[in-house]
Amino acid sequence: MTDLLADQNPLPSGVDSRLRDHLTFLIEVDQLKTVLRASPLAAADRRENDAEHSWHLALMVMTLAEYADEPIDVGHTMKLVVVHDLIEIYAGDTPIYDTELAASQQEREEAAADRLFGILPEDAGREMRALWDEFEARVTPEARFAKAMDRLQPLLLNWMAKGGTWRTPGVTADDVRARKAVIGEGSEKLWKAALQLIDEGERRGWARS
Amino acid sequence: MTDLLADQNPLPSGVDSRLRDHLTFLIEVDQLKTVLRASPLAAADRRENDAEHSWHLALMVMTLAEYADEPIDVGHTMKLVVVHDLIEIYAGDTPIYDTELAASQQEREEAAADRLFGILPEDAGREMRALWDEFEARVTPEARFAKAMDRLQPLLLNWMAKGGTWRTPGVTADDVRARKAVIGEGSEKLWKAALQLIDEGERRGWARS
Ligand SMILES: [Ca+2]
Repeated sequence: MTDLLADQNPLPSGVDSRLRDHLTFLIEVDQLKTVLRASPLAAADRRENDAEHSWHLALMVMTLAEYADEPIDVGHTMKLVVVHDLIEIYAGDTPIYDTELAASQQEREEAAADRLFGILPEDAGREMRALWDEFEARVTPEARFAKAMDRLQPLLLNWMAKGGTWRTPGVTADDVRARKAVIGEGSEKLWKAALQLIDEGERRGWARS
Repeated sequence: MTDLLADQNPLPSGVDSRLRDHLTFLIEVDQLKTVLRASPLAAADRRENDAEHSWHLALMVMTLAEYADEPIDVGHTMKLVVVHDLIEIYAGDTPIYDTELAASQQEREEAAADRLFGILPEDAGREMRALWDEFEARVTPEARFAKAMDRLQPLLLNWMAKGGTWRTPGVTADDVRARKAVIGEGSEKLWKAALQLIDEGERRGWARS
């Protein structure tokens, strides 16, 4: 393992070796704060980064759990969203409307996961990798709800920006509906509200018809 | 309730009123991404914001739970850290070494909590307020561990910055030890490692003796 952030200023030699691996990982992930997303913030005139986005999802899980169609373990769902974008530290963000980048996405992300979770002690790395795999597979109720949050959150930001990434060249309101439909796999009520936002956005010309 | 971020672009009138309150809150908290802390990032040359910090703590809870002195509910501890700084949206960040601001901190934060959690449906607001109160009171094992994370995280960033806020005028290595001692209420092992970082930082002149 080379070129870790922590190598720039190694931890004191007295730190226990298992804990050193944990802390090295926790320093490495500081880079998630520098991975920019396409979405604009509602509260400031700049793009959001992955760490801010992940925090927002964790709070959304807590706040919106009552709308889940199936019972979910809230704490476990929070783990999924806190971890879900970590591999973008090495693989970068793949904007939802960029089909070219999306083609190579899985391969790039698998390699990034091997590298990043490999920093941790083996058992801990395996556990965190399993959370990432669970989120991606979208088979458990928790993963479906986590994914719904991941799609609903930028929709709220785009609403506040009166379009935001809905205005990406070539994207139509129907494209937005298609990419957001997974919200309905986690919550019918939230999917209904999402459609109200997209419909109204289209009516106002914030998304192309 | 006036001057909410969501008032700048009201949600469509068709959205169910309870859900509207939830979403209004989730839009309002976007402002946490604009509250700057004193700590410098390890991965970029800028200060950290509260949303990034809160995400980092949530991941630290998951990663370091095995070092807790008492058994903790990891999901519940994650809720505490995700919520713990929210009131700074209205009350601002109070840097740990700023004793003047610290004097008015509790009053400012209580008022902010009333205002912010009041946006939510009453039951949801009460629940979130209880989490914030629990974190502040530091009586439960989960709150003690959450607080330990809150103190350990900037210590890692300061280490990577070869001093960071340890270099605040008038602050000594012993001040740092005193402010960080609560880490030991959550985890003896992590407190031992924290002291190793502070001791070595003092030896290298990154914190005044
Ligand atoms: Ca704080």
